[in-house]
Amino acid sequence: MAKDLNQVIVAIADPTRRAIVGRLARGPARISDIAAPFPMSLTGFCKHVRVLERAGLVRRTHRGRENTLELTAEPLREVARWVSQYERFWNARLDRLEEFFAAKKEKS
Amino acid sequence: MAKDLNQVIVAIADPTRRAIVGRLARGPARISDIAAPFPMSLTGFCKHVRVLERAGLVRRTHRGRENTLELTAEPLREVARWVSQYERFWNARLDRLEEFFAAKKEKS
Repeated sequence: MAKDLNQVIVAIADPTRRAIVGRLARGPARISDIAAPFPMSLTGFCKHVRVLERAGLVRRTHRGRENTLELTAEPLREVARWVSQYERFWNARLDRLEEFFAAKKEKS
Repeated sequence: MAKDLNQVIVAIADPTRRAIVGRLARGPARISDIAAPFPMSLTGFCKHVRVLERAGLVRRTHRGRENTLELTAEPLREVARWVSQYERFWNARLDRLEEFFAAKKEKS
């Protein structure tokens, strides 16, 4: 489990791979269509796809002569869970503000 | 901004560094105390700390003869924001189940 989480996090640490995830969130598409807007070779692009595949974030389907990719976003759930443990740290300042106003209201 | 997000995500892609973040969530501590339970040299440990520092996730304070570390979790907010865009994908199955029961209730 921890090993997979590492893999998933490494997969999303790259802006190209995050962009691929973002593109696939709009629906499955052919690899060449997804690759087109990226300023890199198809070989380079496919390396990124393989990292996403190994992390379980995309699924490749053979449809006719070309591969189709679709998003399988569930592994991101573990990342969300890990990160959400620390929400209270960035909410802390907001909470202190709320407490301040609640205390003020009680007094008046 | 995107560059920083990459750095933050790379920083949390390692289980030792996630464990350090988890430890510091309980409060600031001296580096040697945080390092003690980890099965590695202090030099190896300090390399991880530097990755976290560069990502803005921990802050080092010189207090007396030893460095103290504290968590500065705010950079994780951007990670949480990015990941939360995809929540609907892992909630989708749950939603379909809810719709099914809502439709059933309406009929009866």
